[in-house]
Amino acid sequence: MNSKINRSDIHVAILAGGQGTRFWPISRKDQPKQFLSISKSGESLIQATVRRVRPLIEPDALSVVTNVAHIPLIKEHIPDSNIIIEPVGRNTAAAIGLAAIYSQVNSGSDPVLICLPADHAVGNEDKLRLVLETAVETAQRLDCLITIGIKPSAPNTAYGYIKRGASLAQDVYKVSRFYEKPNTERAQKYFESGDYFWNSGMFVWRASVILNAIKTYMPELYEGLEKIKAEIGKENESRLVAEVFDSIESISIDFGVLEHATNCLVVTGVDFGWNDVGSWDAWAEHFQKDQQGNLIRGDALLIDSQECVVYSKKRFTAVLGASDLVVIDSGDALLVCPRSRVQDVKKIVVELEAKAREDLI
Amino acid sequence: MNSKINRSDIHVAILAGGQGTRFWPISRKDQPKQFLSISKSGESLIQATVRRVRPLIEPDALSVVTNVAHIPLIKEHIPDSNIIIEPVGRNTAAAIGLAAIYSQVNSGSDPVLICLPADHAVGNEDKLRLVLETAVETAQRLDCLITIGIKPSAPNTAYGYIKRGASLAQDVYKVSRFYEKPNTERAQKYFESGDYFWNSGMFVWRASVILNAIKTYMPELYEGLEKIKAEIGKENESRLVAEVFDSIESISIDFGVLEHATNCLVVTGVDFGWNDVGSWDAWAEHFQKDQQGNLIRGDALLIDSQECVVYSKKRFTAVLGASDLVVIDSGDALLVCPRSRVQDVKKIVVELEAKAREDLI
Repeated sequence: MNSKINRSDIHVAILAGGQGTRFWPISRKDQPKQFLSISKSGESLIQATVRRVRPLIEPDALSVVTNVAHIPLIKEHIPDSNIIIEPVGRNTAAAIGLAAIYSQVNSGSDPVLICLPADHAVGNEDKLRLVLETAVETAQRLDCLITIGIKPSAPNTAYGYIKRGASLAQDVYKVSRFYEKPNTERAQKYFESGDYFWNSGMFVWRASVILNAIKTYMPELYEGLEKIKAEIGKENESRLVAEVFDSIESISIDFGVLEHATNCLVVTGVDFGWNDVGSWDAWAEHFQKDQQGNLIRGDALLIDSQECVVYSKKRFTAVLGASDLVVIDSGDALLVCPRSRVQDVKKIVVELEAKAREDLI
Repeated sequence: MNSKINRSDIHVAILAGGQGTRFWPISRKDQPKQFLSISKSGESLIQATVRRVRPLIEPDALSVVTNVAHIPLIKEHIPDSNIIIEPVGRNTAAAIGLAAIYSQVNSGSDPVLICLPADHAVGNEDKLRLVLETAVETAQRLDCLITIGIKPSAPNTAYGYIKRGASLAQDVYKVSRFYEKPNTERAQKYFESGDYFWNSGMFVWRASVILNAIKTYMPELYEGLEKIKAEIGKENESRLVAEVFDSIESISIDFGVLEHATNCLVVTGVDFGWNDVGSWDAWAEHFQKDQQGNLIRGDALLIDSQECVVYSKKRFTAVLGASDLVVIDSGDALLVCPRSRVQDVKKIVVELEAKAREDLI
């Protein structure tokens, strides 16, 4: 471990409020993506996420921010975590703000916070920790807002991009600008430039630094967080959190804070095989394929088929003469779509919600 | 009913020995295609086949030729039929020969035999009966071997073709030649010519006439049938049938007899909406589609999808962004393939047999 960083000063907040609708039909309201055992190791995605960062922190310096409905799942998957409850999902700005004030109160200090999505995958865990250590060391030294940037391996249109500015140290750059998910043409330009990084959604900052930025750019959220902070551990705590969350805006930390802030840095470095597991297609990238480029999990037979993704653990699936097709069976429901359409799987969930098919969402 | 024909002289033999492997995963060894309730009326295909010809015959003039394993299914679907047992499947020449000798022994005469595959579909039943009546009337008048010919509605490569020769009466022609399933180029030529008909596999002939033709072109089969005939209703009947079927060739009546015989006729006439239900694609032709050309049976949601065939009665199926795809769910197994590959579904069954997956075949 990097000798320059103070381990007792680090806190990890796992953001586990997502629904993972693009992983329908396996991901469901009562069993969202982060709890699915679809990681390479066979653990759930959240278990793998936590295991990867354990070596960086003290045993009790781990919190999970999650929806009240998922408390039993968190207790099952991460028994020794501090659970921070969101009464309703309000996107990452509120969740990160909450994690920041709880980390201050729980530690009695002002720790550096590593904020991690619960549902990403990482190919090389040692290398991930090296990058996080660089970020922590930077955040301990400077009052800055750090996003972990990933060197693009393709002109991917499913990710946000960060353009780097001046270099502050090896693998540490000022952020020149954040960019939303680009179209194909722009993605190609970003990819070729070498100055753009994928926005991984992994952040590192001191609690007080992100809270100050929230105070500047989202004053209503800050006011709510201050009220909550005063009641933590007291009788009115949960009532107050519910009140605050009821009224605040649902917005991402990127859009609400980072895009406006002037002290943003991007920390990058060695390729640690990051994958946001953002779709069945992205998930499949993580695994070894057969000679025809097919990824098969479960009981399946593929004949004359190439580049397909088949997940069929509850029954037998036969695919004949197909290319670039995704076939996912959950037992009670089945998804069939071309790989080029995996980003739209959430449309199915929207339709099912409109049809009140609670049995399927 | 045609007043020229003698109803008491007619016998129907339903050929129900097929496996229907192209209807996997719904069709299985213990529940082959002809017993599936996939007809437009909701009956099984064999029930619909029998109901269509009931008005042509006396109640007891119906036999079903089937494999010993399917006797319980026949009793369930067609309770009042005479069952003729094939100890092993030996294709249509043997089955039709068997039906001919049993019809002679059971009737004590020499009836005209209508031989019908158990698993075809017909859109207009009145028109079918008109065509069959023309054939029966012809077979009662002439010593001939009649195949019902279908006027092609497309250059289909999945059917055998019959070229007509001289006209003998309205809708009755001598057969110039039988042709195997053609390639696309030939099919187009046949379709444009107007002189070619699809071979429906429905035959009409007097029992003695087909037996004489078998005697000429398949003497070993004839010899076996003669031996069986002498034992019908006696102690050794089933042992003898087993012995004969063990040794005889497995060959179709077309290939073994009709292609050689000189007294073949083709009877055609009005379009009665025939469909051999030879694949999931052919089956789908029979039904009304939605506005995007999709055929959906069961609980399914199709988004941005065209010309798909979805059969999902045991679970929910979502298809997103797909065209010309066949998705068939049987509960324990799933088939996904492009419509252009439905003829190859039997390849899956062959593979499953090679893998000894008895649970799936």
